[in-house]
Amino acid sequence: MKIEEIKDLELKHSASHVLAMAVKNIYPTVKLGIGPAIANGFYYDFDFATPIKMEDLPKIEAEMQRLIKQGLVLEAIEKTRADAKKLLEKQKEPYKLELLNDIARGEKIMFYKLDNFIDLCAGPHLAKIDKIKAFKLTQITGAYWRGDSKSKMLTRIYGVAFNKQSELEAYELQQEEIKKRDHNRIGRELELFTAVDLVGQGLPHMMPKGAKILQILQRFVEDEEERRGYMHVKTPLFAKKELYELSGHWNYYKDGMFVIGNELLDDEVFALRPMTCPFHFFIYKQGIKSYRDLPIRYGETSTLFRNESSGEMHGLTRVRQFTLSEGHIVLRSDQIQQVIDECVDLIKYMMNILGIADKITYRLSKWDSNNRAKYIGKAEDWERSQNELRSVLQRHKLEFVEVDGDAAFYGPKIDLQARNVYGKEDTILTIQLDFALGPKYEMTYMNEQGERVAPVIIHRTSVGCYERTLAMLIENTMGAFPVWLSPTQAVIMGISNRHDDYVENVYAKLKHENIRIEKDIRAEKVGYKIREHTKSKVPFILIAGDKEAETNTISIRTREGEDLGSMTADEFIKLIKEKVDKFQ
Amino acid sequence: MKIEEIKDLELKHSASHVLAMAVKNIYPTVKLGIGPAIANGFYYDFDFATPIKMEDLPKIEAEMQRLIKQGLVLEAIEKTRADAKKLLEKQKEPYKLELLNDIARGEKIMFYKLDNFIDLCAGPHLAKIDKIKAFKLTQITGAYWRGDSKSKMLTRIYGVAFNKQSELEAYELQQEEIKKRDHNRIGRELELFTAVDLVGQGLPHMMPKGAKILQILQRFVEDEEERRGYMHVKTPLFAKKELYELSGHWNYYKDGMFVIGNELLDDEVFALRPMTCPFHFFIYKQGIKSYRDLPIRYGETSTLFRNESSGEMHGLTRVRQFTLSEGHIVLRSDQIQQVIDECVDLIKYMMNILGIADKITYRLSKWDSNNRAKYIGKAEDWERSQNELRSVLQRHKLEFVEVDGDAAFYGPKIDLQARNVYGKEDTILTIQLDFALGPKYEMTYMNEQGERVAPVIIHRTSVGCYERTLAMLIENTMGAFPVWLSPTQAVIMGISNRHDDYVENVYAKLKHENIRIEKDIRAEKVGYKIREHTKSKVPFILIAGDKEAETNTISIRTREGEDLGSMTADEFIKLIKEKVDKFQ
Repeated sequence: MKIEEIKDLELKHSASHVLAMAVKNIYPTVKLGIGPAIANGFYYDFDFATPIKMEDLPKIEAEMQRLIKQGLVLEAIEKTRADAKKLLEKQKEPYKLELLNDIARGEKIMFYKLDNFIDLCAGPHLAKIDKIKAFKLTQITGAYWRGDSKSKMLTRIYGVAFNKQSELEAYELQQEEIKKRDHNRIGRELELFTAVDLVGQGLPHMMPKGAKILQILQRFVEDEEERRGYMHVKTPLFAKKELYELSGHWNYYKDGMFVIGNELLDDEVFALRPMTCPFHFFIYKQGIKSYRDLPIRYGETSTLFRNESSGEMHGLTRVRQFTLSEGHIVLRSDQIQQVIDECVDLIKYMMNILGIADKITYRLSKWDSNNRAKYIGKAEDWERSQNELRSVLQRHKLEFVEVDGDAAFYGPKIDLQARNVYGKEDTILTIQLDFALGPKYEMTYMNEQGERVAPVIIHRTSVGCYERTLAMLIENTMGAFPVWLSPTQAVIMGISNRHDDYVENVYAKLKHENIRIEKDIRAEKVGYKIREHTKSKVPFILIAGDKEAETNTISIRTREGEDLGSMTADEFIKLIKEKVDKFQ
Repeated sequence: MKIEEIKDLELKHSASHVLAMAVKNIYPTVKLGIGPAIANGFYYDFDFATPIKMEDLPKIEAEMQRLIKQGLVLEAIEKTRADAKKLLEKQKEPYKLELLNDIARGEKIMFYKLDNFIDLCAGPHLAKIDKIKAFKLTQITGAYWRGDSKSKMLTRIYGVAFNKQSELEAYELQQEEIKKRDHNRIGRELELFTAVDLVGQGLPHMMPKGAKILQILQRFVEDEEERRGYMHVKTPLFAKKELYELSGHWNYYKDGMFVIGNELLDDEVFALRPMTCPFHFFIYKQGIKSYRDLPIRYGETSTLFRNESSGEMHGLTRVRQFTLSEGHIVLRSDQIQQVIDECVDLIKYMMNILGIADKITYRLSKWDSNNRAKYIGKAEDWERSQNELRSVLQRHKLEFVEVDGDAAFYGPKIDLQARNVYGKEDTILTIQLDFALGPKYEMTYMNEQGERVAPVIIHRTSVGCYERTLAMLIENTMGAFPVWLSPTQAVIMGISNRHDDYVENVYAKLKHENIRIEKDIRAEKVGYKIREHTKSKVPFILIAGDKEAETNTISIRTREGEDLGSMTADEFIKLIKEKVDKFQ
């Protein structure tokens, strides 16, 4: 561990002691659990007689501040097991007693003393707590004692601590940014999606506006793929256990699947699919293929399932059902470079269109040439195909890192990494070369010599998972989607009800041109309506009064508050269509 | 039973005796099972020492013919239980002995004698078997003794029998028609879909051409619905048990659902959805709705699941996973007539576009006004809404029947009935009024008086189930889909490889105009290629030779064999686009 990391740990861990002491001062009957430093700060678990609320945090913060100002010293005290037990029994700390029992014979038993507050703890800590120059309590949640859902639910208080006030300020700024861009909050506020307890966690319901964005995206991706030679298929969402036994998922991934029926009780057992590969391969296997037929590109807007555990689910990014722009390309080994180039070209195009190209980095995951036994296939195939992948990335002038030993056993791959608003980096999509599945599923083609040989497979997606793509778009745009993706592109209103007929006419004309327009003829003030639609991020607000009705025009305002002046309906149609054509 | 029906029964049942006697003559060691008359003919179950094959049927038919020509008399013989038992033991017929045991004390025990062939049977029969003027053995299948999968698998021979030769001829003609239009055969021949044993029964895989047709259809339906005020949503494919407990499916439909997990073993139990209603209702319940907001029309291209048992599945018509053009409309009770009218108008439009309007009849399913306790809601609401449904059907000049007592307990409905190639009538879609679910799911809107009241729900689809729609389209067109739905609209070829470049140019031009065109530059004779593409029902075959290349034209042939002469690419584009615009 680096010296800065240790200092950071000491700071955060000491802050958790200050928190515990402050809580104990205010709530003398509270029982203490554990209080570690974590990546983003620290927490402490308490057993309160009456659970506290967010509103109680400022009071605790004030007490912590008071203690820190006193410049108390953190003093380490070693005790014998017997003395330690006696002290904790006197303190009436049942959880600490349990922790004491867990300390192995022969290990030191350490307490840390802060004035009159003595806490069982192994450290490390600061020498003086006034080195905590800035801190903040951030959250209260429930947490089972020792993470066991059969144990008591304690109250966990989270906090952050820093060496400088400016660091806290930077942290708060980042938190605001996260909040401002939080896809889960914006998505619900803009009525893009919702969750329903009775249906289950990780199963978002796409409301009309969210579903519209996904429909536009999916049609766009399907059409672009088709233009590039993909043939779309539609395959079943579940299959018999026997299929997963063949694929290996039954042995290695069963816990990640939703299983229908019970192996011991039922004749037929199925599972919801976590992938589409074999389904596409079965379609390939209909009829004999020749070397001239390859590459064959199968695409599917495919819904997949993953049995995430309850704690892991979040908004649109960790879900139990999701839809991919999935594809499998069946090719000859001499076509690898050409097809990888196609795939990269398509993905680059998509990232540009979606406006996230600058958030993406590329990674070339290669085999470990010192550990060849781990991989199937010939060394020369690995080296050649890795070189081909690299040269494609270079030709496309993409920045990338190379990682040895990160390839799957069946082939090298290119990963696209995106950093989200929380600073976390995720693989959002992959181009995976696969030497294994062709032989495994007994796929063949006739080569020029008339022999049946196994093809190479490429697994790839165009934009990855649609739910996550939507989450990224929300984060990036804060809900102000580009015009081509906006579920509502324009809203029209009259200055008074006198203009309803004119509004209706223009509305009908724009609607007829397939512009996604709404009309707002409620008996509300125009200013109020404008504010409301601006807040819901409609790109264009069209206003019609006497002047507009006379001159057969509409006045246009953007959601950014810009006044575009007045124009005819036809001019506005042209304006919107140009934007849509340019994916703006 | 009518006298004709009894006569028909006698004929078919007597034919089954002739079959049994003929089989016994040829295979003396065969054991006899049962041999009833059925709707389409008759069958007899046999336990052969060595199972026979289709190839063996002509031999049996010849023997039957020989027996019939002898004009044997069918003679009824009553026996005591003791005599009957003695006879069957002598005959070594274990299955018949089992049947004898099942005859209740006091009932007559009848045998029928045909020359030396005496069979335990209750009749009725013809007096003389030469009244069987025509017959045919049609099929061999396996069938468990008494339908019990734990019993022995017997061999079932099916047959048909008629009073006249001409009836057999009519039957054979119909069979040919069925075969010619069989969607299951055509669908596989044209590579529209396939089945995969390892994935499971009732789970068709849509191959590129089938998936393309479904994509076109679904986009068309979604867009038309949107034009008519529908808002599309996308909701989860499965939900927790608790949802189905609320909906009632858990108690009344559990066997029809695919259940994920086990109630006794798992914390969370889910089921694949058999409907989308509650999902749409939860979306409705986001935010407060006013009487001015109604009707609200939710649509979803929704995939649903039904746990059909193995024997019931067939092609695209009885499947375990299917996709509906589903919708739920939330409305005020004063909007029933208006909304039903909209629904009927949309469905009529769809049936016309799909070319199946003339195959459809309508049915108005009403309550039983003599048994009002069975239904929820007020009598006046039932009477009024039934009148409204009727007047909509009348206004649209649709022929319909009215059926008392056929409504669900929660509201009257309109059913669309279609007759398939087998002569079987099916409900392909429904407009269902529902007074129950608004209150049940606590859906409300604010009425003009500011009170929260429950809305009425309409469940409806636009074209029903897409898989079945595709099956119907295949039956109707025998695979020669209209141009707008054809997965491949045209194929272009050169007279020799000399024309490859010209072919490529025209191909690229048509492709650019989003015409679904393929090019065929294989080194095969033009005549061979034309035959092949005609057989795969491509609407237009474009041929380019020296003359065409010189004059910048293409020669066009239709799949019906018509020569449309030569035209420029632009003229052909216009021709296709006109057809697509007119849904031809």
